[in-house]
Amino acid sequence: MSDNLPAFPDVLAAADRIEGHAFRTPLLKSVFLDDLTGADVWLKPECLQRTGSFKFRGAYNSIAALSGEERKRGVLAVSSGNHAQGIAEAARLTGTQATILMPSDAPAIKVARTRRSGANVVFFDRATDDRDEISARLQEETGAVFIHPYDNPYVIAGQGTCGLEFCQDIREMGKRIDRVFVCTGGGGLTAGITLAVSEVFPEAKIHTGEPEDFDDYKRSLELGERVANERWAGSICDAIITPKPGALSFAICKDRLAGGKVVSDEEALAATAFAFNELKLVVEPGGAVALAALLQAGHAHAGETVVVTLSGGNVDPSVLARALEEGAGGQGGNG
Amino acid sequence: MSDNLPAFPDVLAAADRIEGHAFRTPLLKSVFLDDLTGADVWLKPECLQRTGSFKFRGAYNSIAALSGEERKRGVLAVSSGNHAQGIAEAARLTGTQATILMPSDAPAIKVARTRRSGANVVFFDRATDDRDEISARLQEETGAVFIHPYDNPYVIAGQGTCGLEFCQDIREMGKRIDRVFVCTGGGGLTAGITLAVSEVFPEAKIHTGEPEDFDDYKRSLELGERVANERWAGSICDAIITPKPGALSFAICKDRLAGGKVVSDEEALAATAFAFNELKLVVEPGGAVALAALLQAGHAHAGETVVVTLSGGNVDPSVLARALEEGAGGQGGNG
Repeated sequence: MSDNLPAFPDVLAAADRIEGHAFRTPLLKSVFLDDLTGADVWLKPECLQRTGSFKFRGAYNSIAALSGEERKRGVLAVSSGNHAQGIAEAARLTGTQATILMPSDAPAIKVARTRRSGANVVFFDRATDDRDEISARLQEETGAVFIHPYDNPYVIAGQGTCGLEFCQDIREMGKRIDRVFVCTGGGGLTAGITLAVSEVFPEAKIHTGEPEDFDDYKRSLELGERVANERWAGSICDAIITPKPGALSFAICKDRLAGGKVVSDEEALAATAFAFNELKLVVEPGGAVALAALLQAGHAHAGETVVVTLSGGNVDPSVLARALEEGAGGQGGNG
Repeated sequence: MSDNLPAFPDVLAAADRIEGHAFRTPLLKSVFLDDLTGADVWLKPECLQRTGSFKFRGAYNSIAALSGEERKRGVLAVSSGNHAQGIAEAARLTGTQATILMPSDAPAIKVARTRRSGANVVFFDRATDDRDEISARLQEETGAVFIHPYDNPYVIAGQGTCGLEFCQDIREMGKRIDRVFVCTGGGGLTAGITLAVSEVFPEAKIHTGEPEDFDDYKRSLELGERVANERWAGSICDAIITPKPGALSFAICKDRLAGGKVVSDEEALAATAFAFNELKLVVEPGGAVALAALLQAGHAHAGETVVVTLSGGNVDPSVLARALEEGAGGQGGNG
């Protein structure tokens, strides 16, 4: 990893490290979605991944790569949910103590699951507490190794295994990928997938998917430098809200991506409802943003082979109920 | 097919017929479920099948096996939902007109999807209409070929492809199946799976899963002859309520099955909630009965390799909401 930047061989190494621990998720198809888009669409359902999101891949890879001495000190993560669960469960499996700093308004389901993996959860108030200060103090007190949710080369390489798997599966079908839509927060998954796709299908176009008002990645790609969001909270897509693109992920993505897509909260909820009604998958709004971006595009990608990540499924039932009420996805067509 | 009874080669023929039309559904694992049961559990999620249930397999196989002349006359089916959708979509794909006789209280989602595949839906009142009489009249009027939801050798052979797939997948893992739990209505899926499992893993124990008060298959297995349910409606598991075991399915199953399991509506709802919360899969209560039977057994099958069918996912949101309120599945343990 020159300059700490992971490359394709690091994704291969991550695939070896996580084998037998993370699941190899399948590629799924919806005939109805193909009809709606005119494309050959393949869905990568990371909601079926261990802990309910792709985050387990990078979490396990980063902890497994620690030295024995580092692991003894334990690990520390800051996360509203999916990274927290990934780290907590990967820590449990490797016999490592995890401390997780979570915002006090994190979804209840994500707090409960982080705790059941044996992690020590410490809350902070998004409005009044300085989470970096608390994180620094906890690192000092416990000696724990801090694992960033996306700006960490092992995390990026681990998330890349998601892309490696779908590239291998599409190649085995005798097809090639024309386009990829990825749910994008700090860009760990996007950068990892970019490493894999660039190696296997160098001509494929890769798009970020982000919620309205939190389109830092799209704007950063357009400007060629990292810019921040104005707000840091207030989207239904809690799982993928980050201040700005990660330094490492952006370095990997900036000259390689085909542009960012932005969807409204309503479109994210409609995609969540679509996943429920048509795909029979439980997907959280942040994990449905890439699907929302594809649906928004209508027939624009007709004739192409398209891969869409469904990046997580840890949705509170009340949010799903709202999605099913507001987002009346999938009434016409066939199935 | 001697005596009209399908055998293992008919399952292989069905697999050829449905290839490229039905999906090969994956086998999924939940580490939490393994911990709860002490078993190596593999889930066969037929909710991810085309039209949202395994029924598409038998429907497509039976229509594809018709002669050109028969197909021109169209097909007729009586179904409250999943068979209806399977037949309607298989008919659409093969250019066949489908007429579906549905009870007027069939779940709205199932009626809507049957219609969107282009089928002509005719309603009957469960309480006051004689559905056999209406069916006979429709056959006479339209000349359509009647396709029974389970007592049809091509339907049974088609459902058997579900079992063939999971047997192949488990064998490829280098394992053998010790036990299978199947959601059982008229027994089409159960009989088809029995044909496949008996061939590949002859020592595996196969159990039916049925809702309380609708345990006709369990009682018939104990008596060695087909007996009927006292009631024909009134379970949350609408998808798998049938008057009594099918003649063909029972002939295949009666000397081969290891006994029936019965679960309450509450247990079926809790398994539906478990699928939502832990597996991130949308499963209808009737499709969660086999999982409910496994959960009911606690650690009784510890150390075994167990396959569980999740047979369908066409649940109305209101029923899912009830499951999530009443069935607080999966609060303890780990991820």
